[in-house]
Amino acid sequence: MKMIVAGAQIGGIQKDEPREAVVSRMMALMEQAHQKGAEFVIYPEMTLTTFFPRFYVEDRAAFDHWFETQMPNAATQPLFDLARRLEIGFTFGYCELTPEGLHYNTSITVSPEGEIVLKYRKTHLPGHTEYEAERSHQHLEKRYFLPGDTGFNVVRNQGVVMGMAICNDRRWPEAWRVLGLQGVELVTIGYNTPSQNNLSAEEGIERRVYHHELSVCAGAYQNSTYAVAVAKCGMEDGNHMFAGSIIVDPDGYVIARTTGEGDEVIVAECDFDKCAFGKQTVFNFAAHRRTEHYGRITAQTGMKIEV
Amino acid sequence: MKMIVAGAQIGGIQKDEPREAVVSRMMALMEQAHQKGAEFVIYPEMTLTTFFPRFYVEDRAAFDHWFETQMPNAATQPLFDLARRLEIGFTFGYCELTPEGLHYNTSITVSPEGEIVLKYRKTHLPGHTEYEAERSHQHLEKRYFLPGDTGFNVVRNQGVVMGMAICNDRRWPEAWRVLGLQGVELVTIGYNTPSQNNLSAEEGIERRVYHHELSVCAGAYQNSTYAVAVAKCGMEDGNHMFAGSIIVDPDGYVIARTTGEGDEVIVAECDFDKCAFGKQTVFNFAAHRRTEHYGRITAQTGMKIEV
Repeated sequence: MKMIVAGAQIGGIQKDEPREAVVSRMMALMEQAHQKGAEFVIYPEMTLTTFFPRFYVEDRAAFDHWFETQMPNAATQPLFDLARRLEIGFTFGYCELTPEGLHYNTSITVSPEGEIVLKYRKTHLPGHTEYEAERSHQHLEKRYFLPGDTGFNVVRNQGVVMGMAICNDRRWPEAWRVLGLQGVELVTIGYNTPSQNNLSAEEGIERRVYHHELSVCAGAYQNSTYAVAVAKCGMEDGNHMFAGSIIVDPDGYVIARTTGEGDEVIVAECDFDKCAFGKQTVFNFAAHRRTEHYGRITAQTGMKIEV
Repeated sequence: MKMIVAGAQIGGIQKDEPREAVVSRMMALMEQAHQKGAEFVIYPEMTLTTFFPRFYVEDRAAFDHWFETQMPNAATQPLFDLARRLEIGFTFGYCELTPEGLHYNTSITVSPEGEIVLKYRKTHLPGHTEYEAERSHQHLEKRYFLPGDTGFNVVRNQGVVMGMAICNDRRWPEAWRVLGLQGVELVTIGYNTPSQNNLSAEEGIERRVYHHELSVCAGAYQNSTYAVAVAKCGMEDGNHMFAGSIIVDPDGYVIARTTGEGDEVIVAECDFDKCAFGKQTVFNFAAHRRTEHYGRITAQTGMKIEV
């Protein structure tokens, strides 16, 4: 089963840019992807707004305007309409405020019929909860979001077993494995990643892009799945986030990558039958995994030094 | 805490090469490592013999001569003696036959005082149990060994939290994470890896070395630990195994690598204090892991496609 998939990287979205303007950019990228033959498009994490967790606000509710209370909504409906017209499935991230008043960093997978077939709420929130002066910039995801309550699920969309992860999730092999155990063939990941580690002057863009790519390639290889990781990147409100969007094959090789830091489409023809070989041989989980020795992974959250 | 560690790669060991000759080669490498200032030396998996799982024998007991019934024994005692004299700790792999008649692919960590401070029995045995004609070569680890019963433990040796993995274990993030949850600072890995995938003519040495390095670098980065992976390699009984021994830092970067396919020592000064930064920030497990969403990792062995 072959399908051309597209990563639609988005350049920085400034604080005062309205959703409608962002959605127009998303639609232009979808048109480009369609022209390249793509049938599924992956957009970044938090596609509709600036990455506001870099800003501290004492009253969290003052940031509720960054959140969507329904999806689709007036601003995003044109994107859903275009996708249905082009018969394209897609996934993108946004900030979700539920009717119960809960805040999540969310992504959805949408079928070519325009139906939301899977929702995922980010599990591994990086950063911190309170203002921390020693950091070169703030990263307050733990302040503005709850850890996701969905876990890592998959859906069969357009014939492919798809699952989602968001940004920091890609560094956690647990996320990949839970998807792998469900037979995932395409892991879609959106991210907004600052080019500088806010606690280490030494760790700049080169090292951070390496960590990003290392994690995505290892996750894809070790679960024999395609993976598409797509950035919101470049300068945003005076802060730089790295680009480096990639499409990775089930052997862990990058088969497409962006070249710039702005709005940009990359495509690759994915032969999803290629996922089977690894799943049946070196990563035949039933034959090789030994869960009796993995107990700490679920029984123990933090590190315990006992020696 | 800084220490120079050495990887002691070993070229092929032919079928009729006696243990004593191999131990002499190991001792020569230990002397070289000592001259380079190393205080800990990592040798490969199954260091004492040829990689016999490439051979099929109907009566498994006919291969018991590849196994050690005690350790140290007459053949390896000179290595233990030399290490004690040089005040060097070390680890190496061998095939273990227990008093109960059980067969394991084992490695041990030995203190500079010559004491075996940790034993590990390989968990993730690759390959198959019966002769399979469609393979380009046999890989009968599942025939000759039981899956290890030790699990992944750590020991504090020479001030460093050390843990072991063997060969195929390095591809399994579960192994790394169980060690990481115990605060590991140095993961030692020996391997014997054929340069050709025996079920895929397409997958030759380049791809296989990439998978090896990808797995070790990701495991080190995602657990903020040093890792040293050491090959037995080159031509062995007419079969080629890749070299590519590496020392990897807690950022997932290769900081030393072998250049040839024979007996060769590599060293790197490891600053084990560098493990702390990752463990306290991006991989602060207590702050970021969400075990409530990892249930499948321990509850489910094989892949289940439910969509």
